[in-house]
Amino acid sequence: MAPGGDRCRSSVRSARSAAPVSSAPLDPAAARVRASFARQGAMATLGTELTDVVAGRVVIALPIEPRLSQQDGFLHAGVVVAALDSACGYAALTLMPDDAEVLTVELKVNLLAPVSGERLVAEGEVVRAGGTLTVCRGDAYAEQAAERVHVATMLATMVGRRARP
Amino acid sequence: MAPGGDRCRSSVRSARSAAPVSSAPLDPAAARVRASFARQGAMATLGTELTDVVAGRVVIALPIEPRLSQQDGFLHAGVVVAALDSACGYAALTLMPDDAEVLTVELKVNLLAPVSGERLVAEGEVVRAGGTLTVCRGDAYAEQAAERVHVATMLATMVGRRARP
Amino acid sequence: MAPGGDRCRSSVRSARSAAPVSSAPLDPAAARVRASFARQGAMATLGTELTDVVAGRVVIALPIEPRLSQQDGFLHAGVVVAALDSACGYAALTLMPDDAEVLTVELKVNLLAPVSGERLVAEGEVVRAGGTLTVCRGDAYAEQAAERVHVATMLATMVGRRARP
Amino acid sequence: MAPGGDRCRSSVRSARSAAPVSSAPLDPAAARVRASFARQGAMATLGTELTDVVAGRVVIALPIEPRLSQQDGFLHAGVVVAALDSACGYAALTLMPDDAEVLTVELKVNLLAPVSGERLVAEGEVVRAGGTLTVCRGDAYAEQAAERVHVATMLATMVGRRARP
Repeated sequence: MAPGGDRCRSSVRSARSAAPVSSAPLDPAAARVRASFARQGAMATLGTELTDVVAGRVVIALPIEPRLSQQDGFLHAGVVVAALDSACGYAALTLMPDDAEVLTVELKVNLLAPVSGERLVAEGEVVRAGGTLTVCRGDAYAEQAAERVHVATMLATMVGRRARP
Repeated sequence: MAPGGDRCRSSVRSARSAAPVSSAPLDPAAARVRASFARQGAMATLGTELTDVVAGRVVIALPIEPRLSQQDGFLHAGVVVAALDSACGYAALTLMPDDAEVLTVELKVNLLAPVSGERLVAEGEVVRAGGTLTVCRGDAYAEQAAERVHVATMLATMVGRRARP
Repeated sequence: MAPGGDRCRSSVRSARSAAPVSSAPLDPAAARVRASFARQGAMATLGTELTDVVAGRVVIALPIEPRLSQQDGFLHAGVVVAALDSACGYAALTLMPDDAEVLTVELKVNLLAPVSGERLVAEGEVVRAGGTLTVCRGDAYAEQAAERVHVATMLATMVGRRARP
Repeated sequence: MAPGGDRCRSSVRSARSAAPVSSAPLDPAAARVRASFARQGAMATLGTELTDVVAGRVVIALPIEPRLSQQDGFLHAGVVVAALDSACGYAALTLMPDDAEVLTVELKVNLLAPVSGERLVAEGEVVRAGGTLTVCRGDAYAEQAAERVHVATMLATMVGRRARP
C-alpha cells in the first residue's frame, strides 16, 4: 500500500509556532482542553494534573504512588500509557476545529526503564495534523529531585470527529 | 535487519495444551500469577479481577465506571491498555521459569470502538514464547447483558528476567 | 482519550461470510484488488504473487531469494513487512466502496523468527471495517517442503479514500 | 506489568556524543556496519545507499522509482519500512559489542504522507541502548529538488546477539 495521509496534507498547522497558554489566557483551544480534561474520571482517579497546554503540545503529570504500582513496586505500564495517551490526545485536540472531539485510533509505546521516583511527566506533541487523522509522539519521564529519566516513548494516531449537539 | 527471535526458538511451549486452573489447583505458575497480581496496586485501584489463568492465557475483568472514564463518559483508553497489558504480561509469565519476573518491553493497541457497558474483559495470550522475549496478543471486549463487543486488540512484547533474591 | 472507532460502527461488514473468489468469479471487489495489485511495481520487483482474494482476506506469497536477504542470509524484515502490508491493505480494500483507494495509516509488526525456507506466505485479514478506517491483522509464514513456521504478526490501520476521477 | 528495560540501564551510551565517521575513518563500528550492509541482498535490490554512519545514527537513501511503487505510483510503504528498518538496525549495531549481530524484534511505523519525489532518506537513531535490547526511532523524508517532506516515523526494538563463530 501507499503510505496514507494525503487527505491530511492541506490542513497541517505548525505545532511549533504557538505562544504558550500563559501569554494567551483566552486561547479557546487551551480552554477546551482544560474543560475536557476536567471531565475525565480516569485522570482524576490516577491523580493526574494538566501542567501545560499550548498549540500542538500538552503535558500531564502525576505522583508515583503504591496504589498505581505493578507487582514489584514500579509504576504500572498501563498508568504510564494512560497519561501519555491523554497528553497525545489533547495535543491533537489543540489543533482541531472548535467543535471537534478526539478519539484514540491506536497507540504504541516502548517502555525504556522501570518507573520509580516522585513524579511521572508525560509530554504529548503533534507530529502531523491532518483533516481527519493526527499523528502524535509522546515521551514520559520519571522525576526524582533533580534527576529526570526517560522512561517511555509513544507514537499514536488520533481521529477528530464532530461533537454531537 | 533480519527478524529476531532465533534465540527464542528452543523453549517454545504450547499455550493451547494446558488444563484450566480449576482442574489443576496446585499449578505453580497460576499460583505465581495470582500472588503477583495481588501485589499490583494499579490493578486494585482500577477494580480489576483475575478471572482466568491457564498456561499461556490470562483473563482480567473490571467494571466500567465513571471514575475510569474519559471526557465523553466512555472507558479511558489507558484503562483498557492497563488491563490488556497485565493480561498479556501474566500470560507470558505462565510460561516462564519459576524464578522469573516479567516486564513489558513494548505494546501496541488498536482501539476498535468506544467502550461502554457493564464490564471490560481483557484476554491475553502467548503467540510465541522464547528464552528471553515473549510475544503476546490481547483482545478486549465490552460486555453488557448478553452483548459482547470487540473493543481493542493488542500486540505486546514481554521480557523475562531473574527475580532478585 | 476514548478509544476511537465510533464512526466506523454502522458500516461494519462481516469478513467471514464471504464466499471464496473461485466460486464467485465475477466478484467486483476481487477483480479490483487484482487490477490494483498488477499496478504495484514493488510487488513485481519482490516477486510476489496474489494467491487468495476473498471478502476481508487476502494472501500474498513470494519466493525467498538471496536478492531479498538481510546480512545473514535470512529474508529481510522489510520484505516481510511489504508483503504483509499489501495483504492487509487489499484485505481492507475488498470491503470498501467500489471507487475507494486504500492507503496505509500505520502498521506494527512483531518478527517471531528469522525467515528462511522456500516461500513466504503473508495473510491479511480485516479485524474491523469502518466508514473511514479499517483495522487489519496480518500473519506471515515461512514454508519449506511440508514445514510451516509462523514468522511474523502484524496489526495495521488502513484508510479508504475516494479515487480521483 | 512494569515497564521493561531495567537490565538495559547500566550500559546506555550516548548516541549524541559521537564524532562523525568522516573524522574517525578507522571507526570499527562504522566499518562493521558498512560490511554488513554490503551483504544485504534486499538493500541492493531496492537500490539503497548507506549515506551516514556514526555512533547511534545511520542514514540510508534510495531513488524513488516506478519499480518500487504501489498501485497509485507512490513509493510502496513496505519499501519505506525496509529502509527505515535497516537504518534503525544499523544505528543499534553501532553501539553493540564487536561480535554482535542485530535482529529486529518489532517495529511500528506511521506513514505521514504518500511518498513521491526523487529520493527517500531514512534516518535511524538510538533512543535507548541496553545490554540486550535497543530502542530506535526512525524518520523518513521524501526529497525533490530543495523540498523535503517528512513521510514516515518509526519506533523499533532491536536485539543484539552473539555472532556464531
